[in-house]
Amino acid sequence: MNAAIDPVDLAGRLIACPSVTPADGGAMAVLAEALAAIGFAVHRFAAGEAPDGPIENLFAVRGAGAPHLAFAGHTDVVPPGEGWASDPFTATVADGVLYGRGAVDMKGAIAAFVAAAAEVRDHPGTVSLIITGDEEGPATYGTRSLIAWMAANGQHPDLCLVGEPTSQSRLGDMMKIGRRGSVNMWIDVPGTQGHVAYPHLADNPAPRLVRALARLSALELDRGNEWFQPSNLEITDIAIGNPAANVIPARATARINIRFNDMHSGEALVDQVRAILLEEAPRATLTARISGESFLTAPGALSGMLGEAITEVTGLVAELSTTGGTSDARFLSRICPVVEFGLPNATMHKLDEAVAVDDLRQLARIYAALLRRVLPG
Amino acid sequence: MNAAIDPVDLAGRLIACPSVTPADGGAMAVLAEALAAIGFAVHRFAAGEAPDGPIENLFAVRGAGAPHLAFAGHTDVVPPGEGWASDPFTATVADGVLYGRGAVDMKGAIAAFVAAAAEVRDHPGTVSLIITGDEEGPATYGTRSLIAWMAANGQHPDLCLVGEPTSQSRLGDMMKIGRRGSVNMWIDVPGTQGHVAYPHLADNPAPRLVRALARLSALELDRGNEWFQPSNLEITDIAIGNPAANVIPARATARINIRFNDMHSGEALVDQVRAILLEEAPRATLTARISGESFLTAPGALSGMLGEAITEVTGLVAELSTTGGTSDARFLSRICPVVEFGLPNATMHKLDEAVAVDDLRQLARIYAALLRRVLPG
Repeated sequence: MNAAIDPVDLAGRLIACPSVTPADGGAMAVLAEALAAIGFAVHRFAAGEAPDGPIENLFAVRGAGAPHLAFAGHTDVVPPGEGWASDPFTATVADGVLYGRGAVDMKGAIAAFVAAAAEVRDHPGTVSLIITGDEEGPATYGTRSLIAWMAANGQHPDLCLVGEPTSQSRLGDMMKIGRRGSVNMWIDVPGTQGHVAYPHLADNPAPRLVRALARLSALELDRGNEWFQPSNLEITDIAIGNPAANVIPARATARINIRFNDMHSGEALVDQVRAILLEEAPRATLTARISGESFLTAPGALSGMLGEAITEVTGLVAELSTTGGTSDARFLSRICPVVEFGLPNATMHKLDEAVAVDDLRQLARIYAALLRRVLPG
Repeated sequence: MNAAIDPVDLAGRLIACPSVTPADGGAMAVLAEALAAIGFAVHRFAAGEAPDGPIENLFAVRGAGAPHLAFAGHTDVVPPGEGWASDPFTATVADGVLYGRGAVDMKGAIAAFVAAAAEVRDHPGTVSLIITGDEEGPATYGTRSLIAWMAANGQHPDLCLVGEPTSQSRLGDMMKIGRRGSVNMWIDVPGTQGHVAYPHLADNPAPRLVRALARLSALELDRGNEWFQPSNLEITDIAIGNPAANVIPARATARINIRFNDMHSGEALVDQVRAILLEEAPRATLTARISGESFLTAPGALSGMLGEAITEVTGLVAELSTTGGTSDARFLSRICPVVEFGLPNATMHKLDEAVAVDDLRQLARIYAALLRRVLPG
């Protein structure tokens, strides 16, 4: 039996690497060394070119054959911002709490992956880690590149756990079994500029835009379903940019975002919005970018085993949720069932990001308990 | 009999003064000299302080007692802009057309006032010129200051003609017997910022703003009346200023303008708009600025005599109109009946502003014919 890995120590060494997207800051080397020491074959590659790359990616695998359980996550972090009580890139433990950028999202969870894999070494099948350096950024050359690399190298996970911080008030109170999709749309309504005193010589685009937006924001896209809250549309910007009080503007623009559940596709929503827009503003144009489609890993074997592992360690029954933003699970869900589970998320992306040392060690035990269930020795 | 004054020559000397608001450029001195030479007592004063002043103003008067006919206008001009075929501040005559900034709006008309007053010197009652250097600017210390000066100095016009360029396709086809009022309103709808994935934690102000604006832009304020076109509301700006596609904005703002006829007061319209706004957005605030109330000089003696003078010189029957933007007539209408009549306005405020030499000389004859009718010798 080899020595155990303390997730608090490893998380601290990862926090010390200033890996603000797209920088790596040495994080992948720290992780690779720790994984190699517990029997993983480590594959590293950089993907993409400026401006969205290059990105450091890592795939590590131990064992062979089915079942194949993958732990997925990212070493990159969002910028620390100003005003931390301690250096954001120096792990600092005080009163049982570990402070540092990425403690929660999600260097802590990556350290817990490794600690779990160090604890449970005698297993059938395959354990892998799918780790990117670009989840917080455009994610163009991150998990998508890893998925392509795995396909090209014969690596096909059967189940995947993403270590995003899904717990709410206590570790273990929530896992995510799906995510809503997200689409941004940019609306541009042209008109004809003129003087407000002579409206018959002008064509004000603003009334058409506000009529369209009023209709869009009143839409009931659906009422939700068993696993998803209702899809939701938000107007995130409107701009005309006309400084002159006596001028009818030549153009009016807006941007909307829809977070949508599995009753829609992004493309169908774009068509629905465009149809309403063109009824109110026939000359309008709409540009859309689908950040991710919704997905659901229907409650079953994977969420069941994870729920048992959570209860075994924490005594809690985790809620199965599909709330919140997007994550790389939207990509991984295309290749196998995915659940997400990790630390309490209260401080993620904030100043003085922090995790309780006890929570981090419990998380490692939960991941180990899941490993034992998926790959029973 | 003294020598006649050629309005083309005098207009040219005024054009040579670069009097872009609030600059005078020597224009008042040119005018004062010409008026003194034909028997006017000339009073000049500067009014106001920075940033809206000081402004050069001139009141010139000849004769005494009733009736008192005042010609009103302004020597200031809008900036020339780039791209003139000739120097905008050098009067240039080519093919019977006089080019220069202010040729139409309204140094030409001021020259025609003087030429008419030079032609008709033997009259009873009083002729005056009410001339400001700030009609194109904020108009804070222009005609309003002149009205205060006249009241303090016992000058009370009975009838007033403003020389704004009211003719459309031909000199004499239109006079104005009133103007619509104008009010600008600034709308501010507060909300609570948040992440688009968690709309229940935020409060998007945009839907409330677009609902209010959709209702406001659909309002039928009135259907117009015998002398006025319908009042009209335009949305002139909307701004949220949110660069982040995943953020629900904290604030949404808009600006509207209403041009209104004599069936409304500015204040009543502000109240009407505010009531609709607060129904849709209870926390919204509205700030208003009434640029001017509407006014009407009901068709009668003044417009009748002007119409006869126009027909005498041009053969045309002028349309009585209340269309277009605001002018200083909104202030003068408070002290006596006001009509507006001047040159064809096709090139006002544009590059290569120009007046036909024949039109300018005809305008002087029309003003002289009006003088003879109002003050029959």
